[in-house]
This record gives sequence, C-alpha cells and structure tokens, in this order.
Amino acid sequence: MATAALLWVLLSALQEAPTHTVTFRLKAPEAKVVEVVPWGVQYRMANGLADRRVLMVKGADGTWTVTVSGAQPGFHYYFLNVDGAEMSDPASPPYFGWGQWTSGVEIPEPGADWYDEKDVPHGHVRHLTLREKTTGKPQRLVVYTPPGYDRGGRYPVLYLQHGRGESELGWTVQGRANLILDNLSAEKKPRPMIVVMANGQTFADNDPGRAVAEFPAFLIQQVIPFVEREFRTLSGPKNRAVAGLSMGGWQALEPGLPRPDLFAWVGAMSGGSLGNPERDYSGALRDPQRLNRGLRLLYLSQGRQDSTRDRATQLREHLAKIGVKSVYFECEGFHEWQTWRKALRDFAPRLFRE
Amino acid sequence: MATAALLWVLLSALQEAPTHTVTFRLKAPEAKVVEVVPWGVQYRMANGLADRRVLMVKGADGTWTVTVSGAQPGFHYYFLNVDGAEMSDPASPPYFGWGQWTSGVEIPEPGADWYDEKDVPHGHVRHLTLREKTTGKPQRLVVYTPPGYDRGGRYPVLYLQHGRGESELGWTVQGRANLILDNLSAEKKPRPMIVVMANGQTFADNDPGRAVAEFPAFLIQQVIPFVEREFRTLSGPKNRAVAGLSMGGWQALEPGLPRPDLFAWVGAMSGGSLGNPERDYSGALRDPQRLNRGLRLLYLSQGRQDSTRDRATQLREHLAKIGVKSVYFECEGFHEWQTWRKALRDFAPRLFRE
Repeated sequence: MATAALLWVLLSALQEAPTHTVTFRLKAPEAKVVEVVPWGVQYRMANGLADRRVLMVKGADGTWTVTVSGAQPGFHYYFLNVDGAEMSDPASPPYFGWGQWTSGVEIPEPGADWYDEKDVPHGHVRHLTLREKTTGKPQRLVVYTPPGYDRGGRYPVLYLQHGRGESELGWTVQGRANLILDNLSAEKKPRPMIVVMANGQTFADNDPGRAVAEFPAFLIQQVIPFVEREFRTLSGPKNRAVAGLSMGGWQALEPGLPRPDLFAWVGAMSGGSLGNPERDYSGALRDPQRLNRGLRLLYLSQGRQDSTRDRATQLREHLAKIGVKSVYFECEGFHEWQTWRKALRDFAPRLFRE
Repeated sequence: MATAALLWVLLSALQEAPTHTVTFRLKAPEAKVVEVVPWGVQYRMANGLADRRVLMVKGADGTWTVTVSGAQPGFHYYFLNVDGAEMSDPASPPYFGWGQWTSGVEIPEPGADWYDEKDVPHGHVRHLTLREKTTGKPQRLVVYTPPGYDRGGRYPVLYLQHGRGESELGWTVQGRANLILDNLSAEKKPRPMIVVMANGQTFADNDPGRAVAEFPAFLIQQVIPFVEREFRTLSGPKNRAVAGLSMGGWQALEPGLPRPDLFAWVGAMSGGSLGNPERDYSGALRDPQRLNRGLRLLYLSQGRQDSTRDRATQLREHLAKIGVKSVYFECEGFHEWQTWRKALRDFAPRLFRE
C-alpha cells in the first residue's frame, strides 16, 4: 500500500506536477533542536515529506523556519518537537486527530471551490450531548441541519462516522461536510438531509476494536432514538443512511449490511474489508438477494493512493462475485480528508432518491 | 484594583481557606528551562501565583513537573514556555483566549454543581456564520436554542457578548452558558430563550476600540436581522436583551442604553464605566426618564476581587444619582469566568418577565 503512494509521489516529481510549499515558523530562542513532525506515513507522503522529522533552522532573531515542497492538496496533520517536547504549532488552529489535539495545514486544490465557505444559504452545525446509558457519561454528537430546517418539515438522516483517532468534530472541522452540503444544496443536488456525526470511539473507551464491535448497538439503541426525539426526522429505512470513513466505514457496514430494515443507504469510504465472508457483517453476505432487496445503495469509495485500497478492492470484488449490487467511486487522493470530501460530494446527491 | 485582589489572596492564605493544588507535567527530555506561564495579573492571582512564571523541575525520565497551590475556583488560562518557545500544554483542551488558542485549567468550586453537565434536557449549541456586509467575510456566531425549541414556538433572544481576546466560543466553552441555562431550565426558572453569542472583535479586525465603537451598528443592522430570519424569534424590545462581560459589557451598554426601542433588558457584567455622562452611551444618560420608561432591567454585576470594580461602581453611583433604576449583583470572584457564570445564573431568570 505504501509502495503505491511512494511511486505516485515519485511519478509526480518526475512529471513536474504543480507543487505546493509550506513554510513552518516558530520562535524558540533558547531551543537546541526544533522539528516539524508529520503524523502518519500517508500524511508524510501527502505532505511531500519522505522522512519522519524535518529539522527547522534557527535564524538570528531566535525564529526557527523550514520550507517543505511537494505538499498535496488536502488536510495534513503535524506537530512540532522542541528539545524533546511534542507540541502543537501556535500558528495552527487546534484539530482533534491521532487521539489528541494537534496541528494541521490545509493545502488548497487549484480550481476546487466546492468545499469553500461561499455566500450561499448555510445549514446549522449543532453540538450536542447524549447521555450514554451503560456508563452514564455524556457522549458528543455534531448534527448538521440543512438550510431551511427551522422553517419546518421532516427530513431524512445520514449517520456519518469519522475515522480512528478523530472525533465527532472531524467531518465538519477537517472535512468541511457542512460546507460541501451547503454548496451542493445551492445547486439543488441533494435531498435536504440531517447529518448526524457521533463520536465513534469514546463510548467504547477509545478502543478501536470495541468501537467497531459495539457501534451498531450504540447507534441503533441510543443514537437513533435520541436523534428521532430531538429532530424532525422522516422514519423508515428509506429515510436513513449510514456511512463513514476508514474505521467509520466498518462502523457503517457493520450495522448497515445486516439491517436493511433500518438502513436502505450504506456507504464505506476508504473503510471496510473482507475477512471471512460467512461471518463478516453478521453474516449478511450469505444472503445476496436480501441485500439487493433491502438496500437502495451500497457505496464504496477510495483514493487512488489510499492505504486501505487493497482491502476495499477485495470486498468490492467479492460483492461483484456473489451478485450484490454496489456503486464504486474512486478519486485521486491519499488516506486523507481530501479523498473523503470528494467522496461525500459524490455520495450525498445519491441519497434518499426514489 | 490589583491591590484589592492581592489583599484578598493574602487574607485567604492567612485564614487558611481551602486551597486547591494544580500539578503541571510535560515530557521534554532535552529542554533546558520549562515554565508554566499564567496569562494576566488577575489570572496569576486567581491561580495563587504571585510571579509571572513558575519554573518546572526536570525528573529522571525527562518529565518536567510543578505543583502550585492556592488556585481559586474557576477557569484559568496559562501556557508553557519550553526554551523560549511559547506553547499550549498538550494535556489541556484548546481554548480561545488572549487573542489565540491557549491552555486552561478548571478549578472546581466545592459544592457548586449548577454549571455541571447534568442529566437534564439540554438545549442545542449551534455554530453558524453570517457574511459581514462591508467586508464580505464570514463572521462566526454561536447560538443556543433551549430544550424543546425544535418542537416549535417562538422565543425571546438574549444577545450575549464575550470579553476582549476571546471569541464567540467563550460563553459556551469556558463559560458553560448552555449548561447553566439547561440546569436553570430544569428548575423552570428562566423563560426559555435563544442566546446569540457573536464574535465581538473579528468584524472590527480585532481592534478592541473599534469593536466597542462599531458593535452597535453590526448588532442592529446585521446580527439581529440574520437571527430573526434564521430562528423563530419573538419580536419587539420586550423580547430582546443585550448583555456582555468586560469589553462585551460596553458592547451591550452602547446599543442597549440609547435604544430602548430595541432592547428592554440590558446587562453589563464586569464591564461599562462612566467617562463623560453627557456623551457616554450616545448621551442616553442625559434623559433618565426615557431610560426608566424604556428599560425593564438595567443590570450591573461584578466580582468582589474584580479588576473593573472601581469603574463599574462609578457608573452605578452615577445611575443612582440621576435616578436611573438598576439592579446590582456582586459575588465572590476575580475578573474571570467563575464570576460571569454566577452573574449569568443570576441574570437569566430576571429576563423576559412581565
């Protein structure tokens, strides 16, 4: 997987593709060593950084700087290391990723304005808590209500999950899901929908294995009833979708495939795989007819340089072999937010159609 | 002003009042000097810290620690300094204060649970943007809608401003305004209300002088029409309140006192003063009868150790002298969020009464 990405970075360099430079700066007059540290292999590659750490150079005024080139469009996490202290960059807004608050840099994609904050009607992004029943602890959710929601009516709901190490904030803050939907709405493409982004880890004590195993029950028994009490929703499987990215893709397929009585629209972006077709997804793949009858859409997507590409391809090929209908979307991109932004833009207008 | 606070800290120490200790910790194996730096004189005092910087001590494993005692209940900003690099503490969630993302520590007040996240019906905290007309730039607002809002009805609106260096996030994140109102609602005390928290600085390029001077026009011409379009509001001055803390107190009095045709409820928490009674607040103090006729409530509050105490007292005494009715609330506290939380808890149930 890493090989594909590495090759692509090399090819880009050979083809002299447009490159993007990022200059990092930190005032630390007494420090001995200051480094920029990109999070994760894929991020380092998307950053145009081959190595784990990039040394900054100290100027006469005590300011350390470094400029890196070859950064790919999208959102890239990093932190700074000052004499062994790992710290957020004071020049970056805080982002929750990699299990902590850290720094990030947004590299614009030339010509792409579909995820910008434009002068169009905007939905509202609501920050809520739901009291988890077994622990009694508050669990955070972000809920997007579409433009016009407060004027009345009932709406279908997309349950949309973030990836491992991120939080309920990922899809709106890093992913700009609200802006993508606002811009799509201005072109009248999608059905107006509520989007519910639950924290997919904290209810399971941030254990990713438990998060995938226990998410279906948490979603079905707690999140959905809460949302249907708090918001004016349309009911029934035709009005309910579940999707997610990376770990969140599993968290979407796990409840989505076995429960067509609850969800008619299911999507996994750079997530989901095939282990044991008899047992995976509660055995839902044993009955292709039931899946085809129940699902209006089974959607899989990934980036061409995506680290999960092999696994998703294996699942897709198995679905084709057993005759389960699915829609596949592929775009240029790493295992990174630009890929998932593109997927959401493609996915959302397909939902809740007759 | 600082003298009052200093005396109080000394008295507390002499009386052996219950003290609170905070232990700071940072892994920085190669660093030479690591310090905790509390933001601001009042914060340093409320933290129990007399000095500007507190040296941390390096342990054998490269972890620096220090324990400070005497911290007062409430919310206190600080940052770390590692060999001259000013950084946020990785152990703290990020808070926007002092004009940047920084760190903070919450010291619990023994026995006080009225600002905790309890198992009661919760309102929704919405994050919105309004496109500012003269610059075309998006301006951030946080809007609290009370429990039950989505079931219908129209609601009165409190416009509630943060202080200098903070943002639209201050009242909900640091101040816990939503939790305070949720808890009050569970006891049925306040009229259910929408609370609008605009960013009070960015529309004026973060210049505090311009922010106070230009806020009335921004609020009246842009924020209120936007809110009354986006939400189901009750109209007329009886259903509109404006209040704020510190700089936000000025931003509330400036539009509030001259415009009883728009606002019948006005509050300044640790903010507002008296310079020239003929000219201040667009000359509103020249006509006490008009103020008494138009205002249902003119509310002033401060902490007993508050750095703005003298100024607010001067304004209050002048109002009494010219016969303008006002309500005054004082509580134990510094120029700090615990004081403003107490003020909101006292203020909100007074609003929108017959």
